[in-house]
Amino acid sequence: MIALHGGAGALSSQTMSAEKERDYRQALDAITRSGQTILADGGNALDAVTQAVRLLEECPLFNAGIGAVFTHQGAHELDASVMDGRSRSAGAVCGVRHIRNPILAARAVMEHSPHVMFTGEGAEQFAFRQGLARVENDFFSTPERYQQLQRALAADGGALLDHDGAAADPIDPDRKFGTVGAVACDSQGNLAAATSTGGMTNKQAGRVGDSPIIGAGCYADNATVAVSCTGTGEVFIRTAAAHEVAALVAYAGLSLEQAAARVVFEQILPLGGSGGLIAVDAAGHVALPFNSEGMYRAVGYVGQAPDVGIYR
Amino acid sequence: MIALHGGAGALSSQTMSAEKERDYRQALDAITRSGQTILADGGNALDAVTQAVRLLEECPLFNAGIGAVFTHQGAHELDASVMDGRSRSAGAVCGVRHIRNPILAARAVMEHSPHVMFTGEGAEQFAFRQGLARVENDFFSTPERYQQLQRALAADGGALLDHDGAAADPIDPDRKFGTVGAVACDSQGNLAAATSTGGMTNKQAGRVGDSPIIGAGCYADNATVAVSCTGTGEVFIRTAAAHEVAALVAYAGLSLEQAAARVVFEQILPLGGSGGLIAVDAAGHVALPFNSEGMYRAVGYVGQAPDVGIYR
Repeated sequence: MIALHGGAGALSSQTMSAEKERDYRQALDAITRSGQTILADGGNALDAVTQAVRLLEECPLFNAGIGAVFTHQGAHELDASVMDGRSRSAGAVCGVRHIRNPILAARAVMEHSPHVMFTGEGAEQFAFRQGLARVENDFFSTPERYQQLQRALAADGGALLDHDGAAADPIDPDRKFGTVGAVACDSQGNLAAATSTGGMTNKQAGRVGDSPIIGAGCYADNATVAVSCTGTGEVFIRTAAAHEVAALVAYAGLSLEQAAARVVFEQILPLGGSGGLIAVDAAGHVALPFNSEGMYRAVGYVGQAPDVGIYR
Repeated sequence: MIALHGGAGALSSQTMSAEKERDYRQALDAITRSGQTILADGGNALDAVTQAVRLLEECPLFNAGIGAVFTHQGAHELDASVMDGRSRSAGAVCGVRHIRNPILAARAVMEHSPHVMFTGEGAEQFAFRQGLARVENDFFSTPERYQQLQRALAADGGALLDHDGAAADPIDPDRKFGTVGAVACDSQGNLAAATSTGGMTNKQAGRVGDSPIIGAGCYADNATVAVSCTGTGEVFIRTAAAHEVAALVAYAGLSLEQAAARVVFEQILPLGGSGGLIAVDAAGHVALPFNSEGMYRAVGYVGQAPDVGIYR
């Protein structure tokens, strides 16, 4: 099975047009089916999550790859990570501007370097040596995201947005666009997780959230769980959220569902964090808790139609 | 009490001159005493670890700040992080080249931004706006580190050094220079951790290890432990090593010593990782396990002479 998310935040049926909702549901459905096809054909979890996140990056509806939000300085800085539960191998890139698919760069770091993480121009040089596609920074721009930046700049005079209470922030309902991610369990019981993001609208240049941080926004270990997170990245880093789910399953005797809920509601929320996560274990259990108003999400078991959700 | 480390690796009394050993012991002793003085005067754990790591950065013997190793491209790229166990607030910078004391930048991120992590030029811009000292990149250079780079380049024709089996690597005994860090417990039972590094000699530009990763190279929570790590950064990231120590204490019922040893010997080592960590809890227990031949380390209880060690 495969599960994916497309960000969490102030999503409600009151504020979203029927047309927009249909677009999101169709995209989530199609991308889930793509992952299901890989798994049905005997593909492994790592390939399924890589493909799902690559497609989420290519879809302008989500804040990753094309459709990434703008920094305060008017550019796009992208972060991504991937982890293979078989070996606990991992790869990540942060602060990249010219790599078309950051998730493919993260995977190349994992598979073709002795390292786990590269930042900035060094990450780009590595990716291009690996033959990944180079694009101009404005390749990621969309008119909607540009308008969001203008609203954010107008609302706060150019300063940073308040990072607390994102879900309730009246000045930027667009803060709902967080991150994308996927987790999967293949027919061999192997787990994998992948996460990618454009960060926060109007973020300061250089800010890194939880998405490229192994243990925070992404974690996978066949012995426990695969997890991908979305939300107030700072709090997910401070709680090592993805690894904490694994630790609660491994050492505290919690079920996957209990562990995922405890992190989202009892650890993220008290520290002022908003968002959610998706998690699977090797038995194919899945949990998709979120403490915000909504989270774009989908679950697809092989041979079944995807189950797509947005609101609570 | 305060504990600190100055890196782990192929350290043995056979390969180190008596003069060099005396220099290291004197530096570790003096820096530990500086941290003890802060704690004895009623200062908090956060101030003690910040000061200790700042002094380790200023000391050319250690691979952080002045005395940082060279990248393959012949520059210095520095990473640092800090975490306050009272609030689990955290700050980190990675890939910075012109900030004299990366640990002070990490602390400024924690205290003067809503964020946890900044990378590259964005991190530098933030730090300079906070009034931190700017230096040229060669401020960090020392003749010894330059010779190490030349030996590494000559030995491997310019390719990356093998990152496995660092302790036994015959071509670069200088790999012993890893990272610096400090953990402390103050009179209120508050915990804090800080870590700083110049990375690996001959590393590719942009490579980030565990030092600036909250949960991997640095973690602090008053409820469990404060941890700072040194060694094969990639493996410490993949195991979320610092947070794993906390999880084993919180959920698996292990003592601080048991948890720290389990991570270093049963999790880091099987994945090919070399190195160690320092950990304290709110009761003032301390553990300093390492699986390499040696680790520069010191422990100082307030009112007692520092206990300095290098070899097993």
